[in-house]
Amino acid sequence: MIRHTVAFTLKYPKGSPEEKAFLDATLHLVKIPGVQHFERLRQTSKKNRFDFGLSMEFSDREAYETYNNHPTHTAFIQQYWITGVEDFLETDYELYA
Amino acid sequence: MIRHTVAFTLKYPKGSPEEKAFLDATLHLVKIPGVQHFERLRQTSKKNRFDFGLSMEFSDREAYETYNNHPTHTAFIQQYWITGVEDFLETDYELYA
Repeated sequence: MIRHTVAFTLKYPKGSPEEKAFLDATLHLVKIPGVQHFERLRQTSKKNRFDFGLSMEFSDREAYETYNNHPTHTAFIQQYWITGVEDFLETDYELYA
Repeated sequence: MIRHTVAFTLKYPKGSPEEKAFLDATLHLVKIPGVQHFERLRQTSKKNRFDFGLSMEFSDREAYETYNNHPTHTAFIQQYWITGVEDFLETDYELYA
């Protein structure tokens, strides 16, 4: 299992239509083969600078690569991520034991 | 649901007894009332500086506060976290929709 997460902030005002459009667009990613346990998250800790998060799981590295290279993912990056995201941090987790 | 996560690096060499002792000590946290879905994680993305992660869930803010103030948690922070952790980032997530 690989859990891919990204914490991020947007360039848009909080509660704006642009914010909602961005977060709704992330739902396209759910349809990419191999994506499991997809979650849209609010980040609420004041100990970091991020407002939102996405989390998803893949069964293995191959499924993760399939996602990364899928046209739905690359289109999302081009159309929404690059223009909308102010700052982000990605993590990839596997179970330790 | 609140998912509390922390990504971190240790001051100890990779694969060292000190590293294992630290990661084993995190298992004490599982016993604190209200802790759900506790996970020890390896962080494998090269896009950040962290080697490990912990993830746990609480049903609500009150359960999270109970954990934060529990003597098992504060003892772990004093005995292991402060001396062993080089760098870390905490996130608290709630479901967006």
